[in-house]
Amino acid sequence: MNETLKNILARKSINTFSDKPISKENLELLLKAGMAAPSGKDIRPWRFIVVTDKETLAKTSVALSATEKIKGNVAAIVVCGDSSESERFWTFDCSLAAENIMLAAQSAGIGSHWISIRPNEERINNIKGLFSFPGSVEPLCAIVLGYPEQDITPKDKFDSNNIHWEKW
Amino acid sequence: MNETLKNILARKSINTFSDKPISKENLELLLKAGMAAPSGKDIRPWRFIVVTDKETLAKTSVALSATEKIKGNVAAIVVCGDSSESERFWTFDCSLAAENIMLAAQSAGIGSHWISIRPNEERINNIKGLFSFPGSVEPLCAIVLGYPEQDITPKDKFDSNNIHWEKW
Repeated sequence: MNETLKNILARKSINTFSDKPISKENLELLLKAGMAAPSGKDIRPWRFIVVTDKETLAKTSVALSATEKIKGNVAAIVVCGDSSESERFWTFDCSLAAENIMLAAQSAGIGSHWISIRPNEERINNIKGLFSFPGSVEPLCAIVLGYPEQDITPKDKFDSNNIHWEKW
Repeated sequence: MNETLKNILARKSINTFSDKPISKENLELLLKAGMAAPSGKDIRPWRFIVVTDKETLAKTSVALSATEKIKGNVAAIVVCGDSSESERFWTFDCSLAAENIMLAAQSAGIGSHWISIRPNEERINNIKGLFSFPGSVEPLCAIVLGYPEQDITPKDKFDSNNIHWEKW
């Protein structure tokens, strides 16, 4: 099995992180990976807010009601889309970018966790308010990041019942 | 740069494929990668219809108005979600699974292209009719697959204007 497949199968959502910071170089690599995703009509409507400031991280965690669930993330990337550029496809495009970010993180030994924002109206409004979003930009999710400080054994989620060959 | 990052950056959507078939073993690896994605509340609402039969591939292409755009794909995976299991998150979950499938394909030298179904009502109804979907299952996209028969040089889509450090 090649390294890409191993990395995809090894990724697990992480809740508890050490206090080791993530270098700016690594954060930029994650964003580069995110922007390498495909997008509808190649519009690339994604935007990213990168947070490493401790106070802003704490406010973000409160805005997402994630203070109980997530412990110690040293960075967060709020994945957003400009809905005016691609109203029909931005949520899909940004999801693909987010998966690239999480896989790139895994490949660098960095743990991640998708915290949903959309379609929760309260979280959407909290995040828009916290970061003073421009009009047509919408948040999709926040990816919290850090070096894992927990068991990182992945689940085996393969289920042949989900596969339909040639017909339903 | 590690193999995962190289693979993410090397992926490009492919339109023109050779007639070389994809082994069932490889298709299963792609699906295994798809099901390794994270999902909201770990519900895993994804379902996959795998098509390799030529007649069904042709009908799928017509259903998606893709006969002009895509030439010669030897397989397609229709990525669907059971909306009754995860009404709020299935489109995101299935997008993440789809990106895993496309990245796994790239790692095996297989080209892919996301053909959108949602939110196009005509395509949704065509695909539901063609495959006789059960009630609460919804199609998201079709990933067409094959060995590339075209230039596979990827675009560099990195754009620092999309990145906002610490605040918008």
